[in-house]
Amino acid sequence: EIRAEMENLYAADITSLLYELETESAKFLISQLNIETGAAILADMDPSERRDFLKAFTSEEISRFVNLFDSDDAVDLLNEQPIRVREEVIALLEDREQARFILDLLHYDEDVAGGLMQKELVKANVNWNVNQCIEELRQQAEDVEKVYAVYVVDDFGKLHGILSLKKIVLAHKNTKIESLYDKDVIFVETYRPAEEVAELMQRYDLDAIPVVNVQGKLLGRITIDDVIDVITDQASSDTLAMAGITGDVEEDDTIWQQTKARLPWLLVGMMGGILAAKFISFFEGDLKIIPAMAAFIPIIGSTGGNVGIQTSSIILQSLADKTGLDTTVGQRLIRMFAVAFINGLIISTVVFGFNLLIGNEVSLALVVSAALMSVVFLASFMGTMTPIFLEKIGINPAVASGPFITTANDLIGYGVYFGLAHLLLNL
Amino acid sequence: EIRAEMENLYAADITSLLYELETESAKFLISQLNIETGAAILADMDPSERRDFLKAFTSEEISRFVNLFDSDDAVDLLNEQPIRVREEVIALLEDREQARFILDLLHYDEDVAGGLMQKELVKANVNWNVNQCIEELRQQAEDVEKVYAVYVVDDFGKLHGILSLKKIVLAHKNTKIESLYDKDVIFVETYRPAEEVAELMQRYDLDAIPVVNVQGKLLGRITIDDVIDVITDQASSDTLAMAGITGDVEEDDTIWQQTKARLPWLLVGMMGGILAAKFISFFEGDLKIIPAMAAFIPIIGSTGGNVGIQTSSIILQSLADKTGLDTTVGQRLIRMFAVAFINGLIISTVVFGFNLLIGNEVSLALVVSAALMSVVFLASFMGTMTPIFLEKIGINPAVASGPFITTANDLIGYGVYFGLAHLLLNL
Ligand SMILES: [Mg+2]
Ligand SMILES: [Mg+2]
Ligand SMILES: [Mg+2]
Ligand SMILES: [Mg+2]
Ligand SMILES: [Mg+2]
Ligand SMILES: [Mg+2]
Ligand SMILES: [Mg+2]
Ligand SMILES: [Mg+2]
Ligand SMILES: [Mg+2]
Ligand SMILES: [Mg+2]
Ligand SMILES: [Mg+2]
Ligand SMILES: [Mg+2]
Ligand SMILES: [Mg+2]
Repeated sequence: EIRAEMENLYAADITSLLYELETESAKFLISQLNIETGAAILADMDPSERRDFLKAFTSEEISRFVNLFDSDDAVDLLNEQPIRVREEVIALLEDREQARFILDLLHYDEDVAGGLMQKELVKANVNWNVNQCIEELRQQAEDVEKVYAVYVVDDFGKLHGILSLKKIVLAHKNTKIESLYDKDVIFVETYRPAEEVAELMQRYDLDAIPVVNVQGKLLGRITIDDVIDVITDQASSDTLAMAGITGDVEEDDTIWQQTKARLPWLLVGMMGGILAAKFISFFEGDLKIIPAMAAFIPIIGSTGGNVGIQTSSIILQSLADKTGLDTTVGQRLIRMFAVAFINGLIISTVVFGFNLLIGNEVSLALVVSAALMSVVFLASFMGTMTPIFLEKIGINPAVASGPFITTANDLIGYGVYFGLAHLLLNL
Repeated sequence: EIRAEMENLYAADITSLLYELETESAKFLISQLNIETGAAILADMDPSERRDFLKAFTSEEISRFVNLFDSDDAVDLLNEQPIRVREEVIALLEDREQARFILDLLHYDEDVAGGLMQKELVKANVNWNVNQCIEELRQQAEDVEKVYAVYVVDDFGKLHGILSLKKIVLAHKNTKIESLYDKDVIFVETYRPAEEVAELMQRYDLDAIPVVNVQGKLLGRITIDDVIDVITDQASSDTLAMAGITGDVEEDDTIWQQTKARLPWLLVGMMGGILAAKFISFFEGDLKIIPAMAAFIPIIGSTGGNVGIQTSSIILQSLADKTGLDTTVGQRLIRMFAVAFINGLIISTVVFGFNLLIGNEVSLALVVSAALMSVVFLASFMGTMTPIFLEKIGINPAVASGPFITTANDLIGYGVYFGLAHLLLNL
């Protein structure tokens, strides 16, 4: 009865359930389901969980599932496996077309269009009529779960256009495809970065996009569900990068993986802190005379950090959605400085008042507020320039913007503060 | 010839181009295109740009475009307009079905399923045969740009299932729908949050999802392109929230809008800085004796901040993708503390060595390293608990995690540092 109940669930739900089980029980559960459901569950699993789980399976068992996979998912699974298993599984595949598909796809990087595409699609020759097109659809129906549209090619397999299922349904059976199809088809080459594919599909509201080689020959297609996964993965790894975490860590990764991902930027922060300590120690004499100076070290650091992170986040967002393509760096800076001026003025005025209130010297109050004002401007400058510069030299600007900017701003901030104090307080 | 060239472009490309033009030229350009292209461009525009742009149009002109919109886009446009314009446009719509659609949709919040749905869909009565279904499709073909599937309803309009276009193409014309359709249809109620809709569609790889009322009556559908926009908007506003920016600001928003969005958390940071200053000033006597203590204020603050942000980002990600549903708070804390122990040990050992190297007293070196170790643990605790707590009380955990955690960590860190110093250095 477990079996009957399971088969009423969707694969994605059983997948979540499997994560809670021990490998042995999970394997038993999968063996009780029909093979199609088992394949759908495996295709849906998180890569790291799946790699661990499949250790309990023989290559022969794996190949029976992979036989039923879409080719894009088959390649993803095989790429997680050791080479020996990969070769064995491919050799053991009963569906030899599937094996050919996989060999076609295996050599693409996972972050380009070729690495996202599947071979499953329906294509029609431009010389056919609608009836021949429907016959082809019937042949492919089992293999191509979601059709979306039929791609129109010539005798050499070159992509010429697209024909929606809607048009096919409504057309007369002996209408020539020639007179029906849409020549205006948006496609990508295999080497296009995954992010570019995602942008294109989102911009033009596509549900699938054909992939061609440099000669324009149709090789496969990318479906929107896989592109959504690219978009969400990208967003979450950018968020982690901005928090100073390198690589894709998840909360359930091992402690060692987490440490490795987090330590590098913590060490950068530590180096910044050590430099700051070294720097401040030059002013020990000054601090002996005016110990109240030490009290404003934190506000200098935190204001610089907060302004820098705010500024760089706004710039990062505008780089990501390409809204600011027509904006020059100078224009960006002017806007940021205008905002900096207002925010800086408010903060330094309040802090000036606070200083007088607690009975500090006017001269110290002036130094603190002048340093705050400078720090707000410098942090705005750094926060604007760092992402733009990183993007320009081809580094993901999210990766180093967060921790780098905070550390740099801290150092600059303390420099300005102690420099001003030393000069203006005649220490 | 501009016109001919323009009509070879996609609406989305002309939209980007329009943003570069003055309102007058943009209006002229749109008037030169055919009305369908004009409508597609307006439907595609960024809300804030569109609101400004449409000020140059009369309600009558707007209504001619809205007439051709999908109903979901029509409602979005109207919701940006002042009530007077909204009422006028609806009254002036030539397509009275469109007016009815809009009135149906206007009262839903934009962040629930009802606010994302469109009325355009193809439905078939469960008692029909395939031929009747195709006839209905023909009737609706112009209004429903992307069909995806036909929804199967009973005489009362209640949703019973779904029939893919693929099945319709391959079926015999007089097959009964009854024997063909899929009863296993995933749907949402109008009141479900937009994020939940996005999760569902991503989980089950759907390209459209039917929307029903509490009685199960089919009211509309949500297409994947609009859900992708929800996903990317959500990701970018979470990133901004974590950087201490409230509301959806873009780089090209007015200086006043940007200041308003950024000032609140800057003021929270400033209050934190003022509290820190007040707190440190209690230890002025100690600083006079050991001014070298001041030099380590920055590293205490930055280490706490960095660890806190890293920890909360990992927790936020795990809350967002629901991977940790079976993890208890205690388990999360234990893992975070294990990572904290390793990272803290490395950092405090290095800083201890640095202290001895520059010739500071061993006692000061011990205090600094002990404070660093405590700060790493406290920041891991805060970074874990804050997002979990905010999520529990129904506040978006991204909104307050970043700036709140940094500020709180700074204060706790200085407390620990000066407290330890005062106790252990026998000041
Ligand atoms: Mg994992
Ligand atoms: Mg792949
Ligand atoms: Mg196959
Ligand atoms: Mg779109
Ligand atoms: Mg796929
Ligand atoms: Mg997939
Ligand atoms: Mg805008
Ligand atoms: Mg809406
Ligand atoms: Mg309509
Ligand atoms: Mg999915
Ligand atoms: Mg829509
Ligand atoms: Mg849309
Ligand atoms: Mg800080």
